[in-house]
Amino acid sequence: MHPKDPKLTLLVTGGTLDKDYQTTTGALVFSETHLPAMLRQANTTLAVETRVLMLKDSLEMTDLDRDEIAQACQDADTESIVITHGTDTMVDTALALSENANLCNKTIVLTGAMRPFRLGESDACFNLGAALTAAQLAQNGVYIAMNGELFEACRVMKNRQKGVFELTV
Amino acid sequence: MHPKDPKLTLLVTGGTLDKDYQTTTGALVFSETHLPAMLRQANTTLAVETRVLMLKDSLEMTDLDRDEIAQACQDADTESIVITHGTDTMVDTALALSENANLCNKTIVLTGAMRPFRLGESDACFNLGAALTAAQLAQNGVYIAMNGELFEACRVMKNRQKGVFELTV
Amino acid sequence: MHPKDPKLTLLVTGGTLDKDYQTTTGALVFSETHLPAMLRQANTTLAVETRVLMLKDSLEMTDLDRDEIAQACQDADTESIVITHGTDTMVDTALALSENANLCNKTIVLTGAMRPFRLGESDACFNLGAALTAAQLAQNGVYIAMNGELFEACRVMKNRQKGVFELTV
Amino acid sequence: MHPKDPKLTLLVTGGTLDKDYQTTTGALVFSETHLPAMLRQANTTLAVETRVLMLKDSLEMTDLDRDEIAQACQDADTESIVITHGTDTMVDTALALSENANLCNKTIVLTGAMRPFRLGESDACFNLGAALTAAQLAQNGVYIAMNGELFEACRVMKNRQKGVFELTV
Repeated sequence: MHPKDPKLTLLVTGGTLDKDYQTTTGALVFSETHLPAMLRQANTTLAVETRVLMLKDSLEMTDLDRDEIAQACQDADTESIVITHGTDTMVDTALALSENANLCNKTIVLTGAMRPFRLGESDACFNLGAALTAAQLAQNGVYIAMNGELFEACRVMKNRQKGVFELTV
Repeated sequence: MHPKDPKLTLLVTGGTLDKDYQTTTGALVFSETHLPAMLRQANTTLAVETRVLMLKDSLEMTDLDRDEIAQACQDADTESIVITHGTDTMVDTALALSENANLCNKTIVLTGAMRPFRLGESDACFNLGAALTAAQLAQNGVYIAMNGELFEACRVMKNRQKGVFELTV
Repeated sequence: MHPKDPKLTLLVTGGTLDKDYQTTTGALVFSETHLPAMLRQANTTLAVETRVLMLKDSLEMTDLDRDEIAQACQDADTESIVITHGTDTMVDTALALSENANLCNKTIVLTGAMRPFRLGESDACFNLGAALTAAQLAQNGVYIAMNGELFEACRVMKNRQKGVFELTV
Repeated sequence: MHPKDPKLTLLVTGGTLDKDYQTTTGALVFSETHLPAMLRQANTTLAVETRVLMLKDSLEMTDLDRDEIAQACQDADTESIVITHGTDTMVDTALALSENANLCNKTIVLTGAMRPFRLGESDACFNLGAALTAAQLAQNGVYIAMNGELFEACRVMKNRQKGVFELTV
């Protein structure tokens, strides 16, 4: 569909970023992914191939889901891959991918949001801009792009109390 | 003020990104910079030192203004520098900085927005995330981060009709 | 189209309320009316018949335009009518309508916005809620619903300096 | 505080309207009321006295809470009163107030929102505009202003499946 050969693969797995408020129940739920809308809002001309793998809260993500994500990374035609993911188990998925020998020639960047895109005043667009850029510039490996920083998969943890990602000591 | 040594300098010069609608006149004007609010919304933990140099429409930017920007880059304590700038003459400023021999040991990334941050559905946050990341990852040089892509100063032009940045041929 | 007989006619004439920012030119322009989107956002179940008469800055509104608005009021099947209108000449149009003997059996409420709906943090939705309610409750006559108050056409002026409507002395 | 004598009392009790997303827990919680911000955004010049009685999900509202609301209505210096309230038990509170003989010389309008003000694209501002207007125009009695309509307390129910208020048959 995109006039250019895809330069980057965007894999959507859900997480807070893609949740929205459901008026009839008052719950935060998944209806559809907002990544295409976010890319349009950003006026991206980057050739991105977007694939929705699942729309899941990352606390409900299973080993099977992680296998599916790894397989999708392996199947991607591009070296650069961005994965949107819930923050609670983002580090777990990043570690699983970083231990997968089949992915050592890829640059894979996971990102997400602390506040849903659809709720306004969200960190989602900033994080997407950071992740897409990191996926184009960083050397092969698995990373997390959150809070304006780029962390290697094996050196990052989520500080749940502060709601930010930090270097492990 | 920031607990960590600054890792990145953010120089604010104005442009569409920082404009807002003035209700009494119906004009788009500068009141203050929104960069601190954008960094908060993004939950950045990155040690950023922000300096407001000017708040100008880039069509009104003079050679003296460009000298002031170059001097601020030279004075910055950090190797990584992001400059927010109007899009109309962003390429001119990028070229001027890239020809400045005193800045050859810096990574300088210019960015801006096609729609003001304060007007909603803006590309400003995405572009800021991209620029802050590029300033940390790209090798020394002067760049423009717009539309999800990172352009070298000497190889980019603004396509005014489409409202996007493109590689020069 | 609406399952119920229309209870209220909504005439759209433009004004700040309906303007949007055009990224390629940086100007505030009319593309389409946002009233249907505003009614959806408000979850209105009220049977409203919406007619777009024109999309004009109210400073450019002519006597012919005002004749067209008066005719549309006369043609409306409902007693209750809301008109969206630019604020600069809203009082002029309200006065013209109030002097039209053919409209003395209607309740006509003009409203608008100081900040466009599409720019966020706008007064547009509040004003629309006020105007639709006033059109159902006020006795026959021509009114302006702005700033949380309901003014009779012959007793109101716009204070351009403060950007609010006030009772004339 | 307001230069004019208050013309209208605004009693805040909470409900969906005032909830916000908490990033660390992912829950919708009350931090503070957003009514003052909403009145500012609407450029209201109406003399409103705002009192925060409680910030509660209306499913948790008790008979004691309803007594407190009734007392606050009785204590109000103004004839016109608007009450913000959760939608789930808004009808119950409206009925309780309508049966209170001490309030028969007041015009009391309850309103709320199906989507929180702070989450964007909310019906909150529209509903507030409708309720403030109805409280000034309707004859004495207790009403619910939702969905662009004004319902008498004894003739309205919430259709939970559709998420709208309807006339009882």
